[in-house]
Order: sequence, then structure tokens, then C-alpha cells
Amino acid sequence: MKIADKTITSLLPILLVASALRADPLPSWEETPAKTEIIQFVESTTDPESDSYVPPAERIATFDNDGTLWSEQPMYSQLFFIFDRVNELAPKHPDWKTQEPFASVLKGDYAKALSGGDKAIMELVAATSSGMTSEEYSDAVRDWIKTAKNPEKKMLYTDMVFQPMLELLTYLRAEGYKTYIVSGGGIDFMRVFAEEVYGIPPEQVVGSELQAKFAMQDGVPVMIKESSLDFIDDKAGKPLGIYQHIGRRPIFAAGNSDGDMQMLQYTTVRRSSDDDLPRFGLLVHHDDADREWAYDRDSHFGKLDKALDAASDNDWLVVSMKDDWVSIYPAASSASSKE
Amino acid sequence: MKIADKTITSLLPILLVASALRADPLPSWEETPAKTEIIQFVESTTDPESDSYVPPAERIATFDNDGTLWSEQPMYSQLFFIFDRVNELAPKHPDWKTQEPFASVLKGDYAKALSGGDKAIMELVAATSSGMTSEEYSDAVRDWIKTAKNPEKKMLYTDMVFQPMLELLTYLRAEGYKTYIVSGGGIDFMRVFAEEVYGIPPEQVVGSELQAKFAMQDGVPVMIKESSLDFIDDKAGKPLGIYQHIGRRPIFAAGNSDGDMQMLQYTTVRRSSDDDLPRFGLLVHHDDADREWAYDRDSHFGKLDKALDAASDNDWLVVSMKDDWVSIYPAASSASSKE
Repeated sequence: MKIADKTITSLLPILLVASALRADPLPSWEETPAKTEIIQFVESTTDPESDSYVPPAERIATFDNDGTLWSEQPMYSQLFFIFDRVNELAPKHPDWKTQEPFASVLKGDYAKALSGGDKAIMELVAATSSGMTSEEYSDAVRDWIKTAKNPEKKMLYTDMVFQPMLELLTYLRAEGYKTYIVSGGGIDFMRVFAEEVYGIPPEQVVGSELQAKFAMQDGVPVMIKESSLDFIDDKAGKPLGIYQHIGRRPIFAAGNSDGDMQMLQYTTVRRSSDDDLPRFGLLVHHDDADREWAYDRDSHFGKLDKALDAASDNDWLVVSMKDDWVSIYPAASSASSKE
Repeated sequence: MKIADKTITSLLPILLVASALRADPLPSWEETPAKTEIIQFVESTTDPESDSYVPPAERIATFDNDGTLWSEQPMYSQLFFIFDRVNELAPKHPDWKTQEPFASVLKGDYAKALSGGDKAIMELVAATSSGMTSEEYSDAVRDWIKTAKNPEKKMLYTDMVFQPMLELLTYLRAEGYKTYIVSGGGIDFMRVFAEEVYGIPPEQVVGSELQAKFAMQDGVPVMIKESSLDFIDDKAGKPLGIYQHIGRRPIFAAGNSDGDMQMLQYTTVRRSSDDDLPRFGLLVHHDDADREWAYDRDSHFGKLDKALDAASDNDWLVVSMKDDWVSIYPAASSASSKE
């Protein structure tokens, strides 16, 4: 009797693990072919008996952020951070009242402020962050993101992450994948919340960068943000960012816009007959006007046009938010959970 | 009797683990204060009961490469690779016979070739790698390093790694540290052998970079190396490389020259009274003319002057290769092992 008891106790952890392995890793995904395709890829690449087995070191998965892991409408969250910073700093810059693009920001006319294109955005970025130490900047983002809300959904930005994608990240990591963010967003901006929100540590976040310089300030080592751009992690910049930061090609990449096309090409297109690792490209298609937003070929933010055409040529999985996802955001997911 | 047998069998793995934990993690280090100081730091930062405990995510350790993990005399190994490439490519460039710095390289007068300083080095780097895809470059390094030998020691470069430092890397990783290379050497050059030789994967190698561009070449995605420098990972560039690639300050850094001083400052100097993580700086001092080379303040490669002065101000551990290391290279280590 005593021996039997012990046997059961010692088997318990094994039984729990086995049961956890059998549990649905993607409960917020509908039972559609998209979910099946993802699970088949992950299972075949991690099964040592499979022809598609991939050693753990090569299990690199890269994810765009805006529009892929969280919502990007009516515009990228980081732009709202910048606009809020302009308002905060305005008392020290009386000239901004008449000087574009600042004047339009202060009037709340964001479309007009952004009509100056990249040049206007760079002026705004420089005015709101250059000269700060990296810690001062991180502190400002940390404070802001605790309370700032999306103007249309009235939700915290960190509550507007996609529950199905959080499950995908967790699932991949549980299966020995190393998950990275590779995004056009600012690397410093994303690193503040990526670990807490996505489980992705700072060293696995790749993004756009301002130049910076190291200095000993009053005997203390600091990194000071400068005003010129060092790197734009978008379009052909994404494979470059991957090459510089990771040093090997991912075998899995997820995006949602034309800015992600080159990353998906770099990840999935075979180079030669020797290049026999299995490869997976995924595009999130924003087609759910009720629960999120619906946009693709004509959108200003997150335009999905060439990449959508490339998806069929390259066998990338196009995920319909409307049809393939049970829920969009974590709050809705826990409220309307099927469990 | 049967039960007793089972008990012993089931305890065996535990006993083996306990015994492994008690084994000396640094057998190639002499029983000097240097070894004690390292072990005390690692034990106190990983003991949850200790006031100096550091959560695993913050256990970042960065290592210079040339002179810290392997020998750097009579000059950096990568320079020999470049010189060998010049010789290999010379038949296609008849003009090199009369054009500096190539002419001096072809005559074997390396000192003269390098007398043109950084400009000459950049010309050599560009001529021997720009236009190559990243794979072509990696293949060239991989082929070269299999057979190329240090001209003075007549040993393979990968056999000229420091056994005590290999043990330190392994020890740190076993204790939950993430180990990085942060070196002035070319990032692509080091990534070819860092995983096999040091156990450090490509994504944990930070180094100097040429500009590169992504292209679809005959429908195949490639990264093409260009001729201008993108980033020099030396001196103040080292903390910058750490900030960009890792996104948090290391708590342990090891170097051997003035080029590492800023990395050690960035790692070890406290910023404020809130900055209470324990911190460790280490400098390898090349003072062993018999077994390796002896040089410091006046050396052309690996000059250790300002950083040596900074060591006493900052309580960095200066490791004497002569007094603190039982052996230098792995081959010697296995030949003259104390075990």
C-alpha cells in the first residue's frame, strides 16, 4: 500500500506534464486550417523522428510588432507617445506654437502634423528624445504606457495585444523556439514593455534606432540619445536587422504589412537544394471591422498590398482575424472564454 | 532488500548532481585570490538567500575576444585572414603588385601594410569582402580557420583560446549567466567559430560591422557586404554595441586592453544608490612571455595602459596569466593536467 502510494506520487509530475502537452496550445484560435497548419509545423519541426526536425539552435521565430502583436490603428502607438511628449514639453518651447509640425500636434491635428512625412516624424522624434539618457527615455515610456489609452478604443495600449498571438509566442517558446520582435518601432520604446507584455527580453527586440553615444557624466556611465537616425528597421531593413542582431535566418516569421515582406522572403525563400530546413511565413490580415479594424491595400498605417500578393506565390499563411481568431484582445478573451 | 536497491538507484542522479556541483568549476585557475574572487561573486549572485542575489534575466556577462578569449599576437587573427585573402585574390588584381597597402601585403611586409592605419585596414577589408554575400564570406572564414596557423606559435588559431577563460564561460553559463562576445573584431568573422569554440551562439556575438544590404538575387534572398564601415565595436563603441544588441547593462565584463575600458566602466560603475546589483570587471594581463606573450602599456595590439590604471580605481580584478593560470591553451592543459 505504501509502495503503491509512492508510485502514484512519483508519477504525478509526469502525468501532469503529459496532460499539459495534450492541452490545446492555441485556445483562442478557431478550429480552421490556419490553426492546423501552425500546429503541424511546430510539431513536425520539434519531433526528433520527423524528417522536418529542426535542432533547437535553429528554431528562431521573428515577429513584427505594430499590427502583428498589437493594434496599429488609428496610428502606431509610439506616435501617440510622441504627441503626448510634445504637449508635455511645449511650455519649454514657446516657438512650437507657430512652428510645424509641432503647431499641428499642439492643436491636435495629427494628420496635418504627419503630412510632412518622414522628415516631420524625425523632427518630432528628435525634439522629444534626443539629449535624454536611455534611462530617462525608458522611464518616460514606462510612465506613459501605464495610463495612455487608444483614442478610439479607449483601452490601454498594452491591453490591445492580440491574445491569439500571445498564445502563439508562448507555444513556440514551450517548443524550444527563441522568439524575437523585429519591428519598425523604436527599439528603446518596445524594450520597455516587451518582456512583461510578450515575454520577450530586451536582447530579443530589434527595432529602429536613433544614434546614441556613450559618456561618463559626472563619473556615471550613460548612453545619450542623439537626434539622427541610425537604422530604420522596416522593409529591406528587417532582414538587415535580423542579420546584424541574430546572425542567422529565422525559420518562422510573422507580419501584417508590406513592411514585413522582405523579412518573410528572407525567412521562407529557399536558397538552394541544400537549404532544406522547413520554413513558415504568416501574415495577419486585419479584416475584422467589428472587433478590431478592417484594412489592407489602401491603408496609410499597415498597408498590406504587395505582401498579400507575395503570400500566394510563397505559400505564406494569411490569417483572417475575423474567421481564424476566437477573440482578439486578452480582456475579451477572458470575458468570453470557451472554457 | 529490493526496496533498498530501488532507493539507491533513485538517489543516484541526485548524488551525481551534488558531486558535480562540488567539483572545481575552474580547474585551470591557480588557487590564488583571483579564483576565489570570481567564485565568490558567482556564488553570491546565484544564491537566492544572498543579499547579492541577481535574478537570471540580469545575469549578463560580456567578453572581449582578441587577447581575452584567445591570443592576439603578433597581430589579430582576423588580419592574417585578410592578408591570406589578398594573396588568394591577387591573380585577379594585377594592379595590387604596385598599389599600397596591397603591394606590401603581397611582399609579406605586414607592418608596412598596416602603417597606413585605419584607412589601410579599411581598404584591405573592403577589397577582400565587399560584394560577397554573407554566406560566401562565412564559408571563406570557415575554410581558412580550419588550417591557418599563427606564424609564431605554429598552432591553429582555434587552439590558441585560453583554457581558463573557456572554463569561466562554461561556469557562468552553468550558473544561469548569458555569455556574450563584445569585440572590435568583425561580427561575421567571429560568428563562424564562436558557437563551436566558445559555446556562444551567433545572436550573442557583438562586433564591428560593414554596411550590408538585403537583395533578392535570382529570386534568392541574400545579404551583400558593402565596402563602408557601419559600426566599430571598440572603446566607446563597446557600450554602444551592448546597448543596441543587449539592451541592458551587463553585471560582469572581461577584457584585456584600453579598448575594453568603456565596456568595463559601463558594466561596473554604479549610477546611483538605487543601482545595487553586484558588478564585476576583469582584465586579463598578458605577463607570461614563456607560455604566451608579455605586453601591456607599449603594445601596438592590445595596449593595456589607461585601463590598467582604471582597474585600481574601480576594483577590477587584474588576472595574471603567469600567476593565476595553471595552463594557457587547451592542448597544454590536457597534456599537463593536474588530475
